[in-house]
Amino acid sequence: MELQFRSEPLEEDIQTVHQLLSGNGIFRPREILVAVELVQDRITKGPDSEYRFIFADSENQLAGFVCYGEIAVTVGSYDLYWIAVRNDCRERGVGKELLLRAEKDAVSSGARAMFIETSSRIDYAPAKHFYQKAGYAETCIVRDFYDAGDHKVIFSKDLLKG
Amino acid sequence: MELQFRSEPLEEDIQTVHQLLSGNGIFRPREILVAVELVQDRITKGPDSEYRFIFADSENQLAGFVCYGEIAVTVGSYDLYWIAVRNDCRERGVGKELLLRAEKDAVSSGARAMFIETSSRIDYAPAKHFYQKAGYAETCIVRDFYDAGDHKVIFSKDLLKG
Repeated sequence: MELQFRSEPLEEDIQTVHQLLSGNGIFRPREILVAVELVQDRITKGPDSEYRFIFADSENQLAGFVCYGEIAVTVGSYDLYWIAVRNDCRERGVGKELLLRAEKDAVSSGARAMFIETSSRIDYAPAKHFYQKAGYAETCIVRDFYDAGDHKVIFSKDLLKG
Repeated sequence: MELQFRSEPLEEDIQTVHQLLSGNGIFRPREILVAVELVQDRITKGPDSEYRFIFADSENQLAGFVCYGEIAVTVGSYDLYWIAVRNDCRERGVGKELLLRAEKDAVSSGARAMFIETSSRIDYAPAKHFYQKAGYAETCIVRDFYDAGDHKVIFSKDLLKG
């Protein structure tokens, strides 16, 4: 699968990101709206946006994207806000390549560590496995954060090690 | 000490909040700018802002304030973004009263839990003691979050209990 990468969203990505996340079947409508807002923020503000993106296109169609950015009031901590791959493009290394490129870009901007916040819901088990394979470790759990019984699980990776 | 409480910032609070936080001696300039931005956001957007405030005035001067709000993509989780009391108004229950009012207002809007993120830096030890006395428990630590060696400590309180 041949991929083209770009860091700026196109106007049409508001639509395609929404479709991609809806097709994934694990995100709540409200979560998807937040993701679309981040794309809109980047389109409006350009490089002044605190949200950075890498989009992977295959045959001129969006195959996946990653959204990340420096966390305010930290020194060199970045947050991986979103990473998602189109259902029919899975298991082909798209996510891994997107994550590696995001980490590399963050480090080139002074990042020290990447953090990922995810949910304890069973739907997110494959995502957690993916993060762990990519060198992330579970650092802590915030109980009942998303909802009663739905905890926040925080992963992190030291980007300057190894 | 007689206090008047209000929930909407005045234009002058951009200045007075900056002075209050600078006079506290524990916040970094960049952190203070973030706080002032939240005040500005509330002035601009009014009740549409995601940031709620309670200001305590004594003799027409700002004695302290609290800033909190619902956390996006959660069901009933609120974040206590800021709580600060003017140096010469400490040890008189201003912070306690502000926190109680913030919790009460949050619950009346459907809050289930309040979360507080703070730093492991020694400067924050009195703040942590204050949270614990107010019924908050340390729920987890995100190592090296703010900087290498400066961890994030997350406190939480079940607002529906007791």
